[in-house]
This record gives sequence, C-alpha cells and structure tokens, in this order.
Amino acid sequence: MTDRTPQQEPMNRLRALLGAAWDLEMVRSLMQWDQATYMPDGGAAARGRQLALIGRLAHEHSTDAEIGKVLDALEPVVAKLPYDSDDASLVRVTRRLYDRATRVPAAFVAEMLEHFSVSYQAWVVARPANDFATLRPMLERTVELSRRYAEFFPGFANVADPLIEQFDEGMTVATIRPLFAALRANLVPLAAAITSRPMPDRGILNHPAPAEDQLAFGLEVIRRFGYDFERGRQDLTHHPFMTKFSLGDVRITTRTRENDLVDALFSTMHEAGHAMYEQGIRPDFEATPLANGTSSGVHESQSRTWENLVGRSRPFWEHFYPRFQKAFPVMAGVPLDDFYRAINRVRRSLIRIESDEVTYNLHVMIRFDLEVELLEGKLKVKDLPDAWHARYQSDLGLRAPDDRDGVLQDVHWYSGPVGGVFQGYTLGNILGAQFFNAAVRARPAIPKEIAAGRFDTLHAWLREQVYQHGAKFTADELVRRVAGEPMSIAPYLDYLWGKYAPLYGLREDERAPVVAV
Amino acid sequence: MTDRTPQQEPMNRLRALLGAAWDLEMVRSLMQWDQATYMPDGGAAARGRQLALIGRLAHEHSTDAEIGKVLDALEPVVAKLPYDSDDASLVRVTRRLYDRATRVPAAFVAEMLEHFSVSYQAWVVARPANDFATLRPMLERTVELSRRYAEFFPGFANVADPLIEQFDEGMTVATIRPLFAALRANLVPLAAAITSRPMPDRGILNHPAPAEDQLAFGLEVIRRFGYDFERGRQDLTHHPFMTKFSLGDVRITTRTRENDLVDALFSTMHEAGHAMYEQGIRPDFEATPLANGTSSGVHESQSRTWENLVGRSRPFWEHFYPRFQKAFPVMAGVPLDDFYRAINRVRRSLIRIESDEVTYNLHVMIRFDLEVELLEGKLKVKDLPDAWHARYQSDLGLRAPDDRDGVLQDVHWYSGPVGGVFQGYTLGNILGAQFFNAAVRARPAIPKEIAAGRFDTLHAWLREQVYQHGAKFTADELVRRVAGEPMSIAPYLDYLWGKYAPLYGLREDERAPVVAV
Repeated sequence: MTDRTPQQEPMNRLRALLGAAWDLEMVRSLMQWDQATYMPDGGAAARGRQLALIGRLAHEHSTDAEIGKVLDALEPVVAKLPYDSDDASLVRVTRRLYDRATRVPAAFVAEMLEHFSVSYQAWVVARPANDFATLRPMLERTVELSRRYAEFFPGFANVADPLIEQFDEGMTVATIRPLFAALRANLVPLAAAITSRPMPDRGILNHPAPAEDQLAFGLEVIRRFGYDFERGRQDLTHHPFMTKFSLGDVRITTRTRENDLVDALFSTMHEAGHAMYEQGIRPDFEATPLANGTSSGVHESQSRTWENLVGRSRPFWEHFYPRFQKAFPVMAGVPLDDFYRAINRVRRSLIRIESDEVTYNLHVMIRFDLEVELLEGKLKVKDLPDAWHARYQSDLGLRAPDDRDGVLQDVHWYSGPVGGVFQGYTLGNILGAQFFNAAVRARPAIPKEIAAGRFDTLHAWLREQVYQHGAKFTADELVRRVAGEPMSIAPYLDYLWGKYAPLYGLREDERAPVVAV
Repeated sequence: MTDRTPQQEPMNRLRALLGAAWDLEMVRSLMQWDQATYMPDGGAAARGRQLALIGRLAHEHSTDAEIGKVLDALEPVVAKLPYDSDDASLVRVTRRLYDRATRVPAAFVAEMLEHFSVSYQAWVVARPANDFATLRPMLERTVELSRRYAEFFPGFANVADPLIEQFDEGMTVATIRPLFAALRANLVPLAAAITSRPMPDRGILNHPAPAEDQLAFGLEVIRRFGYDFERGRQDLTHHPFMTKFSLGDVRITTRTRENDLVDALFSTMHEAGHAMYEQGIRPDFEATPLANGTSSGVHESQSRTWENLVGRSRPFWEHFYPRFQKAFPVMAGVPLDDFYRAINRVRRSLIRIESDEVTYNLHVMIRFDLEVELLEGKLKVKDLPDAWHARYQSDLGLRAPDDRDGVLQDVHWYSGPVGGVFQGYTLGNILGAQFFNAAVRARPAIPKEIAAGRFDTLHAWLREQVYQHGAKFTADELVRRVAGEPMSIAPYLDYLWGKYAPLYGLREDERAPVVAV
C-alpha cells in the first residue's frame, strides 16, 4: 500500500486496530479446525468455553469505537482517491463491516450464539431420531432471533435482506428471486429430459480402496491445480471445509469413504478451490478485512469451478484417467466414457449434498424460498415439514420418507440463523460459469491445457482477475469487471446444456429457452 | 469446591477472572502445538504475531488489578480455613503468581520476549555453523536481562533465586548447591566405576523399523500405563514435548528415528509421564492456577518415573520384551539380558539429551553451576566456552571438539533467561525416586505388577498422592506429605546403586558413602 500520503498515519492506525480483530478471528479458526480434526473428546467442554472467550474478544476488537473515529477522519480524505485504490477500498469495506457489527448489541450476539449452540447439540441427537417435534420450538426461536437480527437494520425491503447481506453483500430477495425463478424454469425441464434417458451406472465407482491411495490421488491433483502446500495442508475430518489462519496458512480438510473411489477426490478439489482463492489474495492485504473472499457466492464459484467445470470435465479426465486407473487397478477394464458418465450421473434425489450439478440448485432454491417465507411469517415452523415435502414433490418429483431426509437434513437452520446462507451455493454456480467463460474467452488455450493436465493459465487468470482482490470488490462489481456483464444465468445454462445434452443425447427441441434476467 | 461459605461470592469472582487468563494461556499452547506439529512454513510470520497478541492479552488478564482487590478481600477470610482447603490454597497460590506477575512491567516482559525470539532465530543458524561469536553479544544481553528480571524481586540471597522460583517454587541456590554437591560426590565415582567395566553393546538396538511400528508399540505401552486417550493424543514433532489445552485435553508429541528401535518409545513414555500428571489433576481445579503441575522438578519426577524407574526396569521388560520381539522380529535372537543392558548402557558423553540415568545429572549440574556464575558476574560470557570445556574435563573426562557440542548444545540459554530451568531435571530424578520409594512402601505389590504389565496400583497411588493436587502444594510440601521426609538424594542413589551395581558387577567397596543433605 502507498506510503507518504496524507492518510498514511490514520491508515496505519486503522490497520493496527483491524489487525488485532482479524488475528483473533484467525485464532478462533485454528481452535475450530483443531476441534474438527484432532481434538480428543475430552477437550470439548473447555474448547467451547475458550471459543466463546476469543469470540467475545474478537467482537470487542472489531467494534472498538476507535475504529469508528479513525474511519470518520479518513473518509473525507480517501474520497479523493480512485474507487479501487487500496486505501479507499479498505476504508469502504471496513465501514460496511464496522457499521454492521456495531448495530447489533453484543448481548444479542451472545444470546443468539448461545441459542445456536444449544440448538445444534439438539439437532445432532434429533436428526438420527427423526425427531422434528423436539427441534420445533428451537427452530421457532431461531426464526424469531433471525427476524430480530434483521430489525437492527431498518429500511430493508425484505426481512431476509440483512441476513443475505452478511454473506452476499449487495444481493437481496428482490435480486435473487427473478434469477432463481428463471433458473428453475430451465433446470426443471432439463432434469426431466435427462432423467427420461437411461441412467449411467455409478456403481462402477463403488469399490473399496485404501484411504491413503484416495488421499494421495487427490493431493496430486490439487498440487497440479496450483494449491500451495507451503501455505496449506490437508487433514481429515467428518464434514470437509476450508479454513485459514493467515494468508500464509490456508488449510483444507476431507474425509474418505470406504467404498467410493471419487468421493474424497471431488471433496478435495472443492475445498482446494476455496483455498486457492484465499491463497491468491494480495499478501499486503494480510490482517485486514480485504484479506477474505468477497462473498459466499464468489467463494462457492471457485470451489465449484475447480470441482465441476475442471474436475468433472472430459478434458481433465483425458489426462488423468490413465493415472486414476493405475492408482485404482479395479478400474483397468472400465472405458473413459463410462467413467465420465458415472461421475456426471444426474439423478433426482432427496439429499442436497449428494446431488449432481443439474439438480443441486433445485435443492438450494427450495431451501431459499422456504427460509424467506419463514422470515416473512408466511410460513409457520409447524407447517415447514409439509411445505418441504410439497416443494420436493413439485420440483423433484420425490417425497422424503421422513423428516430426517426432509427438514432435518441440513445443519444450517439448526446451527445458525434462518436465512442468508443457502443462496450462496447457487450464486456460486452462476458466477463460476461467468468467470470461467471469461477466462476461456481471454485465454482460449485453457481447455487444451486442461486436457494436458496443465492449469497454470487458468489459475493465473483467476488469480489476476478474481483472487488477488480479496474483498475489495463486491460480487456484482467483480463480475462486471471480469466478465463485462452483470450476474447472468445464461453462461451457466449454456455450460450445462453443452455438457449434458451430448452426454444424455438430448435434442435441441428439449431445451427450454433461456429467459434473460 | 465448597458452596455456601462466607467467601463463596468473592471466590466465584476470583475464579472467573482467573479462568479467562488461564484459557488465554491454553489457547496460546494450542497455537504453539500446531506450530510444532502441523503448521506449514507459510504460517510462521502470522503465527508469531498472533502468539504475541494472545500473550499480551493473557498477561493483561493475569495482572488485572481486580484480581489483587479480590485477593485482598479474600485473604483475611480464608486465613481461618485449613491450609490445605481448596479455597485457601487457591488464594495462596494465586497471590504468589499474581505478585510475581505484577512486579515485572509488561514493557520489560515484551522486551525480554522479543530478545529471546531474535536470539533463538540466531541460535538455529549459529549452532550448526559452530558460531559462538555471533551469539556472544546476544547471550550477554540475555544475562543482563535475566539479572534485571531478578532485580524486580529485591531481597534475594542469590541473583539466580528469583529465576529458579519461577520454575521450582521454594528452591534457591542455597538449597540446591549442597544437594547437588553431595550428588556429584557420589555420581562421579559411580560413573567412573561403571565405565571401568566392559560397555554393553547398544548397537543391537540400531535397526531400521517402520515409523508406524515404533509408534504403535509406544502407544500400546502408555495405554497400559494409564495415559487417557479420551483426553489426549500423540502427534509427531521435531523436539518432543507435552502440552495441554485444558485438563480434558493433554497432548504429547514424539518423533521416530530411522535406525533406532527404542528412541521414540522412551520419548513417548517420558512425555506420557508428564501428561498423566496433568490428566490426574482434580477436574474441579480446571481453569485455575491449581490446574498445573506444581514445579519443574515434580513434573520431571513423573516423566522420569515412567521412562526410567518403570520403563527401563527389568520387571517391565520381563513382561514386554516378548511383545517387543514380536513387533521387531530383528530382535528375535537377542536375549532379554543383552537388551536390558543395552537400554541401560552408561557412557560418558558430550550430549545431555543422549546421556544415561547415571551421567545425566552431571550434565545438568555443569549447566546449573555455570549459569549461576554468569548471573553472579563471576563468569563472563566470553569465558563461557572455556569454562564449559574445563567442567566437562573434570566431571566427565571429555572435551567437546567444538562449541556446537559445547556451549551451543542446548537451546535454553538462547531462547529464554539464563537460570531457572536446568535444576529441575535433576530435582526430578531426586524426587522421582522418593515418590516411587514411598509408593512401593505403601503398595508392595507394585514391582510384581509391573512385571505382569500392570500399572494400575502405581498409577492410582501417584494420582492420589501427587497428581490430583496440581499446584496446591509446593514440591517441598508435597515430598514431606508423600514420602514423610524433605527432599533427599539417598533414595535416588540407592536406586542407582541397586540397579547398576548388579548390571555392571560393581563391588560394595566401590560405592561412595551417601552424605545426608
């Protein structure tokens, strides 16, 4: 960042204040990572207490009134700088986060976190027991708390908007609904057309393989992607995630399945996509709010790019399949075409996280619509199970046999607010296709390089265009800069059709018209 | 702890204040554990910064003036309680630590820590390069800082005493010197007698073995010892250590050597000894200063008990040797006697951490004497290398070929104060023998149980007599309660003679008389 400017001294003061708050968050992430990877059971009680302590200190530091004063002093000065200058961007982003954090009283945050913790513990027991009745009053309280959270931000058009803003800055129910409606209008017929064709045999992937062989193959792939092991590592956990403790230490986790040759592999690619985004942020943003991915949607765009657009593509496997067969000799007699169809099997199913590229968004949109209705008061928690079943029936033609695979399926509503999280998954698919399209337009050699097992050009382009900026630009600003257009579903639908029509022998007349949004 | 007492409310207030300080220290330990086990290189810079931040917050919390006020209010109340009541003990121990912490200005602590960090980085480079010249000015500053630290505690008899007190409460140069002098008067002739006999062949232990087999054997042994894996785990590192993040999460680390069948095993036993002490502390002491081992000496007594008194004993191997031979088939033809002699080989050597039970203390006492002379100003840093060589010549009959295996050998003087640390190793040997003696007196079945691979009686007795009390009693108080006598070298010398005389065929007339201290 620039030296010898009029704002230098207050900027340094701001960075010092922000650095402590950021570092406390990083310490908290380390504690959570350890909890999810190595911590013995006996450590749980103290870890909960210690997380609460560090969380409280982090909140105190990030809402320090001194930050507000420094921002007040800086804003008139940086107003003269270009919008995308580092100093102006840091002040702008900090102001947004600071105002958001200071509007919500610490006591309310503590109340909310305590409720989420109780609710999560109850979900862990209630889900396997298919016991929605026990969770119902807790979920009612969660909806109530989520609404109260929103009310700290008066002036919203929709009560879900303040929750969405936390994760996808600049997005609102009003911008998401038409996007999702148009997407659904295309995906429902696409899924119907695909599932009218013979289903590929995914059973060819169900073979036992030593965990270390599964892990070794995944690590080799992401090393080739460009994940930097000098600034990261992979460990085992139950529910894979990416986390970071600084820009120099961005870790991923995965798990292996006993009887599945690719499950761990795609999880590793997915988390590596998240991690390469964070590893690619400009190092001089370290310990400031700019040193984060800018939104859930943009983050998810990168995990899905590396997992799906690259990792489930035919060019990728043209290079890697012989190695895969060598690593897992049981695949020796299976042709590439069969393998490629198996990893891209589309099937209407009940479980979001096990679903495919085409139907995944249908799961997401059901959840998004239901949570907005809950927040708006149009849907009561007591009616949620039936509403869930009705939507699965209409969108996917299926009905869950119980609540376990219905409203109890995802941890989100039982461990955090209702609203704000789900839309990011689908926004990620949309944005990922836009960024990837733009990359191939700018660097037409990319597909051929992927087919040769090389990813440097793609990775360098994404780093240059997306990763390095961290949180400097919102998703909307970023997609306009990078793809030269606002968020649009057309590239994503083109991608899906271009991939799945030949795979399943779909006819052009089966394609729904893309409605521009 | 007792409820409904006059002191209940201020005691609760005290515990809340102490809990936050303790938890911050625990978080710091987690960060250091990760740094020494899993952290990628890229994380180093930020981790250093974050450790400094948490260290500063921990210091602020543990020197909070509010603690002093609550102590002032409590002291007259708990004065009426028995000395060993929980409340009186917590107030007493907290007062000691609080007064110590508040006497040293935070700015001085920061200055010291920063110097130690620079000095340590320099040592890492200078030791392999045999470059004492570069470190000399840093060590001079370390001596100076160590003296200045001591000066915050006016009234000491010896300038080293305030440093020793930090680690071995109640011990002073005046109490340690005669103890060590008497010990040396026995150990020098014992080592001479032993090394006049044929040296056992330790080469029989130098065989390559898969790291996982080495680790598995060690884990099995400490599981039998009673190390609780529900409240701990073992990971790999370069320099093995024990650490804890709460009483429910006490971890150990080890490393394997490519060509040594027992090195990792004894390191694992050693760290498990430290860990079982911490795991045995009363759970209701959690998050108070009582939830720590009471001194370096008592801590080391337990690591050495399980590593040496148990793990290098003949009864232990009568049970475990057949298993060991099964785990490492290369030992199939080696008789137990040869193996037992190999793991108890005594040899005068230059390197402390590779030395045996008999000569180990000679290494420690050299360091203790030299560091006290440095602090007293009787020895200049520039003369330290020669003084080192002279003492090794007189005590061990050896001269290091260079400073690398001389004054640069141990990290301690280059990463912390000069003074305070080394005496604990030998105090541990002395105390360990006293505790073990008392255990066998009280529970005569212990040796036979060890020969049957059972450790419950010994472990339960140590937990009852030593572990559960945490920091409630000083080492001196503890040994008087447990062994019914003050610290004494006689049991340790009896143990050594009882073990090594038969092993090396020593005659009774070769034994130096034990001088009571």
